[in-house]
Amino acid sequence: MKEYLKTDLNTVKRGANRATYDVKQIYEILDAGFIGFIGYTFQNRVISLPMAYGRIGDKLYLHGSQKNKMLLALIEIKEISMTVMHLDGLVLARSGLHHSVNYRSATLFGKVNLINNVSKKVKILKSVINQMIPNRWDSLRTISDKEIERTLVLEMTIETASAKIREAGVKDEKSDLDLPIWAGIMPIKQIAEFPIGDELLAKNIEIPKHVMDYYTDNKL
Amino acid sequence: MKEYLKTDLNTVKRGANRATYDVKQIYEILDAGFIGFIGYTFQNRVISLPMAYGRIGDKLYLHGSQKNKMLLALIEIKEISMTVMHLDGLVLARSGLHHSVNYRSATLFGKVNLINNVSKKVKILKSVINQMIPNRWDSLRTISDKEIERTLVLEMTIETASAKIREAGVKDEKSDLDLPIWAGIMPIKQIAEFPIGDELLAKNIEIPKHVMDYYTDNKL
Repeated sequence: MKEYLKTDLNTVKRGANRATYDVKQIYEILDAGFIGFIGYTFQNRVISLPMAYGRIGDKLYLHGSQKNKMLLALIEIKEISMTVMHLDGLVLARSGLHHSVNYRSATLFGKVNLINNVSKKVKILKSVINQMIPNRWDSLRTISDKEIERTLVLEMTIETASAKIREAGVKDEKSDLDLPIWAGIMPIKQIAEFPIGDELLAKNIEIPKHVMDYYTDNKL
Repeated sequence: MKEYLKTDLNTVKRGANRATYDVKQIYEILDAGFIGFIGYTFQNRVISLPMAYGRIGDKLYLHGSQKNKMLLALIEIKEISMTVMHLDGLVLARSGLHHSVNYRSATLFGKVNLINNVSKKVKILKSVINQMIPNRWDSLRTISDKEIERTLVLEMTIETASAKIREAGVKDEKSDLDLPIWAGIMPIKQIAEFPIGDELLAKNIEIPKHVMDYYTDNKL
């Protein structure tokens, strides 16, 4: 599959010129982050909450406590939608309504499965941790059976999706271009600062390569 | 009002030790950003989408095209919930399940009103632009009546809210502290890079003070 099928559900109506249904581009947006916003209904209100995810192929994985209201609601309704967005810049136009942002945003729709198989749960928790910071899992203390048992793990199979990407300069009215007003882009980035070791670290433990790699890849 | 009343709707159940209902703290989280995630129901699916907002007191303002599906749905159901989150760091523990993030997140619940009054709409659009970058509105080309007319403006009155803030080090099991595993915090920040002027700028226009102020306040 190279593109998600356009249906009524995922077709972008507003700003269709910024839309893409390309699977590779959508995976790139997902892999540039690890937190998505998920909507669910609670007390007849639609609530949108952030959650960490891991991606393996066309599956996204979520985990949490067995009492997590949102996860329990998702298991109940068996369907899920998630949006991941990265802000890349402020678009500062000469007029108010041409202000915008540069961004990459993906909205996914899928089915939810509860995962109970222990070895699959371990694989999934590995994907969630490594989504946050690559290659970390293998350096950690082995997860215990009790920890696995008391963790709720959900699998989302992406059925369809769309993304919107704006990566451009200011688009003003032609008649405004001669105005003596500054217009341009304020680039925005999410960066990492130098890692801070825990006060209680055992002696002689250096910052490992996967942590320094993350810092190097994400510092300004 | 100093704190939002705790009801079934806004009471934080998971991680209650990180919860706050303090109005001032919640306003601070809102004013540190300008994009929130709003959930709405479309084709029986709950979708979560990012939107720019402006805040004036206990009101948040949204705007968009008159054909914006989400805004039209919100006007219909007259209720709204929005979440704003800032990621401040990766919490890298010695075991997988103690991994976490440092963050500030606010979830708001409120009523929706459609705003039709022209001078109120102008005030609101000013608040949205200035939420993105302070003091910009007054430097812009005056908004036209036509532009105001064709823009949908929604007012959300915050009725109740909660926030979760994690700003702490690693919390590992005592029995894990002696393990030869590096643990610590990777601080994460959203920063601005030097503003890039539009290619079509009229001659002799310098970067204005409000743009340089934003850059100075947000650069690393």
